[in-house]
Amino acid sequence: MKILVINGVNLNLTGSREQDIYGEETLEEIDAQLEAFAAEKGHTLAFFQSNIEGELCTAIQEAEGRYDGIVLNAGAYSHYSIAIRDTIAAVRVPVVEVHMSNILAREDFRRCSVLADVCKGTVLGFGKKSYFLAFESFFL
Amino acid sequence: MKILVINGVNLNLTGSREQDIYGEETLEEIDAQLEAFAAEKGHTLAFFQSNIEGELCTAIQEAEGRYDGIVLNAGAYSHYSIAIRDTIAAVRVPVVEVHMSNILAREDFRRCSVLADVCKGTVLGFGKKSYFLAFESFFL
Amino acid sequence: MKILVINGVNLNLTGSREQDIYGEETLEEIDAQLEAFAAEKGHTLAFFQSNIEGELCTAIQEAEGRYDGIVLNAGAYSHYSIAIRDTIAAVRVPVVEVHMSNILAREDFRRCSVLADVCKGTVLGFGKKSYFLAFESFFL
Amino acid sequence: MKILVINGVNLNLTGSREQDIYGEETLEEIDAQLEAFAAEKGHTLAFFQSNIEGELCTAIQEAEGRYDGIVLNAGAYSHYSIAIRDTIAAVRVPVVEVHMSNILAREDFRRCSVLADVCKGTVLGFGKKSYFLAFESFFL
Amino acid sequence: MKILVINGVNLNLTGSREQDIYGEETLEEIDAQLEAFAAEKGHTLAFFQSNIEGELCTAIQEAEGRYDGIVLNAGAYSHYSIAIRDTIAAVRVPVVEVHMSNILAREDFRRCSVLADVCKGTVLGFGKKSYFLAFESFFL
Amino acid sequence: MKILVINGVNLNLTGSREQDIYGEETLEEIDAQLEAFAAEKGHTLAFFQSNIEGELCTAIQEAEGRYDGIVLNAGAYSHYSIAIRDTIAAVRVPVVEVHMSNILAREDFRRCSVLADVCKGTVLGFGKKSYFLAFESFFL
Amino acid sequence: MKILVINGVNLNLTGSREQDIYGEETLEEIDAQLEAFAAEKGHTLAFFQSNIEGELCTAIQEAEGRYDGIVLNAGAYSHYSIAIRDTIAAVRVPVVEVHMSNILAREDFRRCSVLADVCKGTVLGFGKKSYFLAFESFFL
Amino acid sequence: MKILVINGVNLNLTGSREQDIYGEETLEEIDAQLEAFAAEKGHTLAFFQSNIEGELCTAIQEAEGRYDGIVLNAGAYSHYSIAIRDTIAAVRVPVVEVHMSNILAREDFRRCSVLADVCKGTVLGFGKKSYFLAFESFFL
Amino acid sequence: MKILVINGVNLNLTGSREQDIYGEETLEEIDAQLEAFAAEKGHTLAFFQSNIEGELCTAIQEAEGRYDGIVLNAGAYSHYSIAIRDTIAAVRVPVVEVHMSNILAREDFRRCSVLADVCKGTVLGFGKKSYFLAFESFFL
Amino acid sequence: MKILVINGVNLNLTGSREQDIYGEETLEEIDAQLEAFAAEKGHTLAFFQSNIEGELCTAIQEAEGRYDGIVLNAGAYSHYSIAIRDTIAAVRVPVVEVHMSNILAREDFRRCSVLADVCKGTVLGFGKKSYFLAFESFFL
Amino acid sequence: MKILVINGVNLNLTGSREQDIYGEETLEEIDAQLEAFAAEKGHTLAFFQSNIEGELCTAIQEAEGRYDGIVLNAGAYSHYSIAIRDTIAAVRVPVVEVHMSNILAREDFRRCSVLADVCKGTVLGFGKKSYFLAFESFFL
Amino acid sequence: MKILVINGVNLNLTGSREQDIYGEETLEEIDAQLEAFAAEKGHTLAFFQSNIEGELCTAIQEAEGRYDGIVLNAGAYSHYSIAIRDTIAAVRVPVVEVHMSNILAREDFRRCSVLADVCKGTVLGFGKKSYFLAFESFFL
Repeated sequence: MKILVINGVNLNLTGSREQDIYGEETLEEIDAQLEAFAAEKGHTLAFFQSNIEGELCTAIQEAEGRYDGIVLNAGAYSHYSIAIRDTIAAVRVPVVEVHMSNILAREDFRRCSVLADVCKGTVLGFGKKSYFLAFESFFL
Repeated sequence: MKILVINGVNLNLTGSREQDIYGEETLEEIDAQLEAFAAEKGHTLAFFQSNIEGELCTAIQEAEGRYDGIVLNAGAYSHYSIAIRDTIAAVRVPVVEVHMSNILAREDFRRCSVLADVCKGTVLGFGKKSYFLAFESFFL
Repeated sequence: MKILVINGVNLNLTGSREQDIYGEETLEEIDAQLEAFAAEKGHTLAFFQSNIEGELCTAIQEAEGRYDGIVLNAGAYSHYSIAIRDTIAAVRVPVVEVHMSNILAREDFRRCSVLADVCKGTVLGFGKKSYFLAFESFFL
Repeated sequence: MKILVINGVNLNLTGSREQDIYGEETLEEIDAQLEAFAAEKGHTLAFFQSNIEGELCTAIQEAEGRYDGIVLNAGAYSHYSIAIRDTIAAVRVPVVEVHMSNILAREDFRRCSVLADVCKGTVLGFGKKSYFLAFESFFL
Repeated sequence: MKILVINGVNLNLTGSREQDIYGEETLEEIDAQLEAFAAEKGHTLAFFQSNIEGELCTAIQEAEGRYDGIVLNAGAYSHYSIAIRDTIAAVRVPVVEVHMSNILAREDFRRCSVLADVCKGTVLGFGKKSYFLAFESFFL
Repeated sequence: MKILVINGVNLNLTGSREQDIYGEETLEEIDAQLEAFAAEKGHTLAFFQSNIEGELCTAIQEAEGRYDGIVLNAGAYSHYSIAIRDTIAAVRVPVVEVHMSNILAREDFRRCSVLADVCKGTVLGFGKKSYFLAFESFFL
Repeated sequence: MKILVINGVNLNLTGSREQDIYGEETLEEIDAQLEAFAAEKGHTLAFFQSNIEGELCTAIQEAEGRYDGIVLNAGAYSHYSIAIRDTIAAVRVPVVEVHMSNILAREDFRRCSVLADVCKGTVLGFGKKSYFLAFESFFL
Repeated sequence: MKILVINGVNLNLTGSREQDIYGEETLEEIDAQLEAFAAEKGHTLAFFQSNIEGELCTAIQEAEGRYDGIVLNAGAYSHYSIAIRDTIAAVRVPVVEVHMSNILAREDFRRCSVLADVCKGTVLGFGKKSYFLAFESFFL
Repeated sequence: MKILVINGVNLNLTGSREQDIYGEETLEEIDAQLEAFAAEKGHTLAFFQSNIEGELCTAIQEAEGRYDGIVLNAGAYSHYSIAIRDTIAAVRVPVVEVHMSNILAREDFRRCSVLADVCKGTVLGFGKKSYFLAFESFFL
Repeated sequence: MKILVINGVNLNLTGSREQDIYGEETLEEIDAQLEAFAAEKGHTLAFFQSNIEGELCTAIQEAEGRYDGIVLNAGAYSHYSIAIRDTIAAVRVPVVEVHMSNILAREDFRRCSVLADVCKGTVLGFGKKSYFLAFESFFL
Repeated sequence: MKILVINGVNLNLTGSREQDIYGEETLEEIDAQLEAFAAEKGHTLAFFQSNIEGELCTAIQEAEGRYDGIVLNAGAYSHYSIAIRDTIAAVRVPVVEVHMSNILAREDFRRCSVLADVCKGTVLGFGKKSYFLAFESFFL
Repeated sequence: MKILVINGVNLNLTGSREQDIYGEETLEEIDAQLEAFAAEKGHTLAFFQSNIEGELCTAIQEAEGRYDGIVLNAGAYSHYSIAIRDTIAAVRVPVVEVHMSNILAREDFRRCSVLADVCKGTVLGFGKKSYFLAFESFFL
């Protein structure tokens, strides 16, 4: 199986940004661990990161037919991007939503996801482990 | 007269996306029909599509002085992009807003347009015919 | 094809009322132009106007089986008449909603239509041209 | 005892309107059954239907002193007619509110009754049986 | 000067309806006193009452050019009739709003007037004296 | 037919509690009258009362397959117990909701029922007669 | 009869302040006209103005037993001073509320009066004439 | 490691209840599979189910010092039980919240969890797999 | 005098739970001190604690006629239990509400008490002293 | 210990104002009783009353370093005076909030205290006894 | 140029009050620095401070014609004083609003300024530097 | 010191766009003046403008370690871009928010900034001078 891991805005700062919330490992380090984890189980991963909302839409559109699933951490866009929401609803490839922090336990404006109701499932609050759990959800 | 038809986020998926709402014809097919319709009446059309909010702003900015009108379907951005709203307010070229579905009759978050109050008019809910009606509004 | 044009409360004042919003032509003048426009294309129009909410309901009810479509400008009732909404939902004749002004761009209480989700489509903000566009929507 | 059964807007369409909600029997058929049911128990019924809010007010006003009770299905007006509410509050004849569908279980705008707090009781959701239960409530 | 006094829904019940709020005099008695009061000052009054929202709109429309002012107690319609509001905005004859009770001091749903912002002034809460004060406002 | 009558929190106080609202008869007395009424028509009743939300859920769960219908007055839980709501949705036995007072006419927090949209119908405001009407609704 | 006219915050600026709303006459000029008007009818007026909320409370408290009525324009405090509201409720001298502009027709934050429900009546929107009408309300 | 799996109200109906949402396997079957899955990895599971809110609180209280973690599906209580929320905040044993359905994609009243902000993480929408992912979250 | 002290959900954890808010003494220790304090003044106390909402209702119901007053700390149920609120309203024994923390100074969902308006008085924020003050309120 | 008792707006009317809520004793009488009560226990009281919000702020500011505690009944200002709230937060002297009536059981606008979250504790609803309990809270 | 610096409620505590937010310098020290800064540039400053809302209104009223501009920090009154707002709107002297803390980044009730929309500009969050920047805004 | 001046969406139109609000000078002209102003004081400026939200995030990310401060006018994105907000929170370089118009005095949707609470300070409403004041805030 081929899974695409998409990270949105500011996730390229992981490791240096608010370390008490997001941890000290960089996104590259987490990606590498995730890739090893997947490889061990015989699966292939691809990675995409962008700070631009519309590029995230395009990436999801283009995953159609090329990947078996998407693990998506849209970052701040999760809270207001109806554009990304509509893209997920428009494609057939299943998307699992991921957040490192428990967004339901933070500021008011962060306590909703406009993406959740078109995703297959959502994993919140386990730090980098959220990615691993989301990945596993395709194989359990 | 020269009219620019701008399509926003996810409209490049028209034809494959939620066909019960948006129909089975692709955006290219609709564009072609619209172009023929315009040509027959002696008018010229140009087309632009982007998934990126800021590129839609730029396209509207640059239409100033080059086109006589804009037919705009901003897709999901219609519901929250004050950026696009401000661009429309900032230019002198008249903009007609178009939606294939009747946004006033769908989910709560889709029942408003932050663009409407700076557009010349709005056509909602006629499927691909919404584009034709918006185009005609410049000539009636 | 036979189309019924229904105008609701205060639209009989068109031409004298708030001319900057509604223009200087009377409803009769607009009706006459619309009728000529339709006749030229081989269609028949009928007209009905009332200030009474319940008479508008009755007119829509009785259009069933006698007309092929309704062009409806319910005026202020559009913003709160669940009664008219239910009538439209109850009949099979397709109704296209029309507003001369762009209600999405006016006072808060005027920025919604309780009718929209049971209409075939909505045309907003083109002045008297809104009627022509709505009429055309039956033939495109 | 003499009971007046008042039906409001669109209830004259019962039988043809949204049959999955309102059933296939016409209002006349339901009225006839209700009349038979009442006659059997020695009571007299009268019936009134109008689509016009103000005529429903007048009918309730005029029932004062002529009927022992009113069974009222105000239709869509139940959700916003403070006028009808005030009429019920102004007269001494007891009014029982009836809805064929369970309005508390439908669209948001239909989940309230502005009439309920001035009625003797409310029966919701039993289809045509709601009228029978309301009628019985005067005799239990 | 010729002033038209318009009373809306349920005001024909004045005198029998909730006497602690509206007093024991009938509308006819109040009208007669008001007429005498006006005549004494050399002015003419006319009176209109209807329970039907649309008829109140029509009465206001037709007052244009025939009366110098309107004293309007729209009753319960004051709280939600955008239709009547639009009629007042559409005519040039000045309208003074009247309520016998102080609507700002009653139930929540009665604490607003959608008519107020298009009226010349509003008099609230003086019982039948509200009509007299409104009448005087044309001559001070 | 076998019908289970379930009474929720505080209904065991009926007869001593706020007598102007709930009357002077005890729940036992009402139950007895209801039982006699049912027996006369050849039906069997069973009764259950608890102050504990979860026990009401369990009682509804266990009625499945053992009773033909439930008459439910959940008391205060009606206003916020999604738990009971979910139980009703989960079982196949039809439930009719009952309130002695007209909850739509009392304090704001009491003007909704989270149970209504999964019940077969609702009877409000007839005092103890509400139970009789609810019972009758299974046989009309 | 002795009437106290109390003016609150910023009303000492009347005549220079926003003249399109409040007119060009100063408070002193209006007071003088009002005094002449009252004298002519055999009544006595006293005047008090303060910009300080608590001093307005004290003035109302001290009017008890010394005046037969109060004409009160509390200015901006009308929209939020529960303190003044409570003072009016605490004394027995009747208070009539006055506003020169029609507060129901201005900015949102100005569309309510927290004083109204403890006043005898309210006169809104007649400019300086509001004071005269309020004064007359004690004698009609 | 010893993990306690707590299931709240109505989850004992899993397998028979709304099968399109919750699947056809019973809670016992899911528990058994989960236990086998844990045993294979050398961990021990315990199970508790109750329909009673307060018993769920007690179970969480008593897990303190006896278990290394809790997997909690509180069912409908998740949406309003501040009691359970407070219990989780009061104990030191880590709690992972689980929902079989994606609660963020269902009815409005189900789109929030009052428990989430005191849990370690949340897993939503993967059907029975939600339990497995929550379990794994303790070991990744 | 005999006073019943009722503690609700999670208060059995007092002493170990969030010690910065609730202090380090256990509920048993506080109860003992309170009992000594009461005994010294010649009064008798009884104590009841439960995590179950409905059992708290039952305890309040059964206090009727057996105790002269209730000191109630309902814990988290204070914020949403209309059931407990209705029980307090239904009995004649006076209830004084107590909270150790100042609930008005904490999270939004904790800033209201649905019980307060049916209690005799409320004491908030004095830690264990809140119980002593509530107790004294019966004797001052 | 030296305690300052501050009373805000309209509390100087206690004894004559709404006696069913505030009792028949004057503030002076209550102060005298409170002083005797304190003296008996060896403590000193001082008293301050003002109707002016800013003077209450000044009084609290100046209590710093001169008193060991403040018993504050800010009257109506409790519901909206962020100014007083900020003063309490700015000084180190502990403040206990007092209300004679149970403000949580009265009108909506009176159901909150903007002061509560910066006070040490709050005592509500015990009439004049509220002062005594607040006083005692410094010594328990 | 002559500039008046007005400080509202609690700003006289600057230096001792919440030093992490407002710094350790007293208002007098900041005023002195500001005066030196202005003198150096050839401008004159005057200073006014009051805790009383109405006195702040009066100070602004009296600045008209005597000063060329006002630097205003109204403190807590900024969040609710429509009285001060109206005064600013009523005078012609330009007012620049200042806050030492970034009010948009604090508690909810502090996140708005009812004064801002009638001020020339607003400077937020730079500590004592906010005053210097506001002063400079008159000369850039 | 090196300061980066970032301008967001539509600010490239400054000078031609709504000149009554934004003035007649172009962004290039303002930038040049600002650069001269800074050079005079021995500081270096750099400039960046983009219409694309994500590119503004990237520009702020990349300023880390390369600039001593950022002056940011994010244009319309200020009102809803949590993405930009999160970037500001994630970097250590201080950001000062700038708006030429007073956003708190315009349309409702423009009356908030989601960026403000993570910025060092905010300057609103001084036209092009807002940039100069923001720049100075780094040096005062």
